[in-house]
Amino acid sequence: MKVSELGEFGLINVLNEVVQTSNQGTDNSSPLGFELKVGIGDDTAVWHSSGTHGLYTTDTVVEGVHFTRATTPWRDLGWKLMAANVSDIASMGGLCLYALVTLGLPPDTDVDDLRALYQGMADLGNRYGVKVAGGDIVRSPVAFATVALTGAAERPPMLRSKALPGYQVAVTGYVGSSAAGLEVLLSGTPANSEAVELLVSAHRRPEPCIKEGRILLMHGVAAAMDVSDGLADDLSKLCTASGVSATIEAGDVPMHPALQEVFPERCLDMALGGGEDYKLVFAADENLMAEVIPLLSPSAAVIGRITAGDQGRVRVVDSRSGTQEELTPRGWDHFKSPSTTEAN
Amino acid sequence: MKVSELGEFGLINVLNEVVQTSNQGTDNSSPLGFELKVGIGDDTAVWHSSGTHGLYTTDTVVEGVHFTRATTPWRDLGWKLMAANVSDIASMGGLCLYALVTLGLPPDTDVDDLRALYQGMADLGNRYGVKVAGGDIVRSPVAFATVALTGAAERPPMLRSKALPGYQVAVTGYVGSSAAGLEVLLSGTPANSEAVELLVSAHRRPEPCIKEGRILLMHGVAAAMDVSDGLADDLSKLCTASGVSATIEAGDVPMHPALQEVFPERCLDMALGGGEDYKLVFAADENLMAEVIPLLSPSAAVIGRITAGDQGRVRVVDSRSGTQEELTPRGWDHFKSPSTTEAN
Repeated sequence: MKVSELGEFGLINVLNEVVQTSNQGTDNSSPLGFELKVGIGDDTAVWHSSGTHGLYTTDTVVEGVHFTRATTPWRDLGWKLMAANVSDIASMGGLCLYALVTLGLPPDTDVDDLRALYQGMADLGNRYGVKVAGGDIVRSPVAFATVALTGAAERPPMLRSKALPGYQVAVTGYVGSSAAGLEVLLSGTPANSEAVELLVSAHRRPEPCIKEGRILLMHGVAAAMDVSDGLADDLSKLCTASGVSATIEAGDVPMHPALQEVFPERCLDMALGGGEDYKLVFAADENLMAEVIPLLSPSAAVIGRITAGDQGRVRVVDSRSGTQEELTPRGWDHFKSPSTTEAN
Repeated sequence: MKVSELGEFGLINVLNEVVQTSNQGTDNSSPLGFELKVGIGDDTAVWHSSGTHGLYTTDTVVEGVHFTRATTPWRDLGWKLMAANVSDIASMGGLCLYALVTLGLPPDTDVDDLRALYQGMADLGNRYGVKVAGGDIVRSPVAFATVALTGAAERPPMLRSKALPGYQVAVTGYVGSSAAGLEVLLSGTPANSEAVELLVSAHRRPEPCIKEGRILLMHGVAAAMDVSDGLADDLSKLCTASGVSATIEAGDVPMHPALQEVFPERCLDMALGGGEDYKLVFAADENLMAEVIPLLSPSAAVIGRITAGDQGRVRVVDSRSGTQEELTPRGWDHFKSPSTTEAN
């Protein structure tokens, strides 16, 4: 069977099974005072050691798949790659520590472009305390870049698997702006208004929610993940991990006025289906939600509720029009449905 | 300037400079009880936290550059990729902990091949306690695989920068066998003898020196690195990091009898220049050396001495023939001199 037939998430399950069944080695964790708490299946791996909860994640971009030089300058690419990793740490409620950077490069790559890439990683990384501590550089016929990032938290991190029926669902800010910015770039629309510029900037320089993640963790929120593949799709993953379903109220999904101005017809689709906003989606009971929402940005909003059963299903209702829509995941399966990706 | 003009090590210096000069961010290490001790420039990054020395490394293989399906079956590829990472932990004297695996895959990749890759990683990883804790899977026009691996040690790890003039230099076992095995595979020589089979196996299933690294660390050896690019080249890197030079006695370099049998003329070249043996090269004073050598494999041997000045220079002398050779690094610069790589 080919990877394209199985799809990304099917492949992850197959390989996870190999990892689980072949995991028969010696254990260094206990003698060294470590314990692996969360392996494959959340935004980061989690281990525990001497009262600290270690976090560990990685993300990769490949030229022609995740970026093209036409729509993403190298400095922005560095920013975005680091932002994707930092966002995983944010979704656990942690702080960032150390990054390893791997570059796969065609020999004719311009050195100044790589300086710009590293500068972009530093632009974003410096805001969140990331220290680049090493990496690997290899020759490759196609350019790619991988960042592996560690972080830590003082208390048990937020997980995808902790949502319970009855919890409210919320996001920490506007969604859909990044997808709209990409659409603007791909269509060649000139940045002739403040609204268009804002959307392009949301695509090129997304801001991860480290501060928001810290607030949620410190106030006791237990279930969260970051919106990297799209709100509906990522919420579906959170529901799958928790064995629950969810209902979203369409009118409550926070959309930036610029998104509504530039894409009045398609803004809700973009808000539900567009990726790379790097906001956090989280679930908590009503009392806790009432406590934390006022501490977040004014654009943070409760958007729905966790429901029992139907594991992984996400419904979108529009109470004003009386419609109800069953969402199929619109996020990006890297192998099966590349239609939302930048280079396609 | 193109990457091909600058070369891998020039590029590392340029990017390291960007990292250093742009390192102006907030510091999460102190508040969380972490301290970054070694960044770019050694076999792994090192941090300190609650009495533990954390280790952190990454290695990547790209199809057509580091492997071809003709000479490396997927299961062996998994073994070798994991071995390269484990060897970095070994060179610091640490034990392995958690791995993240990144796969870049063409959509027509066969799922069974990936099972084999993961099984190969587990074959090697289980021997040394590696737990796969997550990763990332992306679409890519060329196949590549990256492992990021953490480890830990109870005391300050061995570093490249700790060799002093007067120290003896030693390796933990036979070198050159992996390069000879690759040569056999590339030339299509049938595995018609035990010697040839042994060399092919040394290339396909190299064994990292975790046990040896532990012995060296626990007995107080301070300067070590692993032989991944070639003995002469890697010793030159160790000398550069320590601000010293070295002299190797050609007759003392440990070579497996199979290597000498199959390549009687070229065995010394292969032993000095061939990569991927994953033995450790280390330096220590005579008393300490006399203490640790008997604890290692019988093939471990003192091969020379650290000398003052001439930073990074490695001389090879043959006392029996009275010749002296100045070695230029023969290791693999990924961009400038790909001639020793598998696919070239």
